[in-house]
Amino acid sequence: MTLHTLSTTRSHGGTQGVCTHQSSVTGTEMTFSVFVPDHEHGARLPVVWYLSGLTCTHANVTEKGEYRKACAELGLIFVAPDTSPRGEDVADDPDGAYDFGLGAGFYVDATEEPYAKHYKMWSYITEELPGVIAEQFPIDMARQSIMGHSMGGHGALTIGLTYPDRFKAVSAFAPIVAPSQVPWGEKALGGYLGPDKSAWRKHDAVALIEDGARLPALLVDQGEADDFLTEQLKPSLLKSACERAGIDLTLRMQAGYDHSYYFISSFMEDHLRWHAARLG
Amino acid sequence: MTLHTLSTTRSHGGTQGVCTHQSSVTGTEMTFSVFVPDHEHGARLPVVWYLSGLTCTHANVTEKGEYRKACAELGLIFVAPDTSPRGEDVADDPDGAYDFGLGAGFYVDATEEPYAKHYKMWSYITEELPGVIAEQFPIDMARQSIMGHSMGGHGALTIGLTYPDRFKAVSAFAPIVAPSQVPWGEKALGGYLGPDKSAWRKHDAVALIEDGARLPALLVDQGEADDFLTEQLKPSLLKSACERAGIDLTLRMQAGYDHSYYFISSFMEDHLRWHAARLG
Repeated sequence: MTLHTLSTTRSHGGTQGVCTHQSSVTGTEMTFSVFVPDHEHGARLPVVWYLSGLTCTHANVTEKGEYRKACAELGLIFVAPDTSPRGEDVADDPDGAYDFGLGAGFYVDATEEPYAKHYKMWSYITEELPGVIAEQFPIDMARQSIMGHSMGGHGALTIGLTYPDRFKAVSAFAPIVAPSQVPWGEKALGGYLGPDKSAWRKHDAVALIEDGARLPALLVDQGEADDFLTEQLKPSLLKSACERAGIDLTLRMQAGYDHSYYFISSFMEDHLRWHAARLG
Repeated sequence: MTLHTLSTTRSHGGTQGVCTHQSSVTGTEMTFSVFVPDHEHGARLPVVWYLSGLTCTHANVTEKGEYRKACAELGLIFVAPDTSPRGEDVADDPDGAYDFGLGAGFYVDATEEPYAKHYKMWSYITEELPGVIAEQFPIDMARQSIMGHSMGGHGALTIGLTYPDRFKAVSAFAPIVAPSQVPWGEKALGGYLGPDKSAWRKHDAVALIEDGARLPALLVDQGEADDFLTEQLKPSLLKSACERAGIDLTLRMQAGYDHSYYFISSFMEDHLRWHAARLG
């Protein structure tokens, strides 16, 4: 596996990298960013996975997420993958909509054509990229955690719930908690996985919990001025599911905050400290 | 004076605003950003002016500067103006170069045509915008400070040296310290002010110090991996001038850091704390 380093930039007492590699899972070149704090020679650091939301690439959180200072202090490697395969032969939304296709992989392995060829973000994030990361960076793969925003919050929750032994901490900013029940998710899961809703349940955090998935704890921040709150995000569904399942959910409704990186960056440090405490 | 608010967004326990107004000085609509921390009703807060570098608008530092957390903690209003007039009838560099014209006002009042009509950034920043800010935001105008990056570091140094009683603190990231002696500055000062170099001296920090301008202290961070260090920035010229003048310059050469916001954001908090200590 050949990794191409597009850039490395010193920042906050560490190195911000941007890399590409040819993915055998998506069949495309994939880009991700990785921040590595300064560390002693031979040390292995825990890693925080950050999954981004609709329309984003690796670059949004890398530029606006304000995670580097806390990661440097806490000794956390921070990995931010892209949100979909990209390239000329990668099928997009037929109407070019922002909420499906390019920039909107929804962290599933598509089974429906024409998306099944490249849209394999579940396998990319859970299988291939961890191998790349483990090989190339000084990471202790026994200490991983995962977080994400919006569609990426959905990804973090579903991946975290599916691999509770792999991730020591799971948190989200304004996640899509029940995609099967909201327009964004109905479109995406229907488009990628087809009309049989039974196939959707393992890609729906609330359904996963209903079906028995468990985590010791979850941290979720949600802006109360988020335009997508009532139609697409519905954190109350996660709250109810966690209450029924005995999952220790800390759901913080943040007055006045919207869906943007102005919101995410405000609470990024809190999340990283919460992760660090669980990563040991 | 009518101020139009383009956006207000809650972030880090304050409000990030972006505003426009019709400038009578530049004859154009001007955009700036302003972060106002939460504060007690009736309180007046100190203000930090941030002047941006070549190619930037207000947006670069607003998105990537990582200043909001520290400003909220320290109770500092943070104002980031644009770097030039803009509009269809605003003359640009004849070749569309990045280092003159649009995005490159160099914080001077142009006297040369066709730039003299709109390029009045010195008067805009030192006269008109302070009036707008004072009228519209809860600022204690007796407590102002100024900082900037690259071309904006040049602006902060020259404005700070010209108005030592107005600004309680002056600092810079990778400033152009002696524009009369480097290609960026020779092109810009020549283009805006004409060939008579005596007119350049009040827009050259090193020349201002040589001509008697004084400040109690200066803080400058400079990345050692900055591609512009040896040809355009030349901090040693500032160091020598400050030594001769008895100005207490703290010049920190930062190993490995470049000219980007990855550098600026790494040391922004240090600068804001340095400013806050002097703003009282």
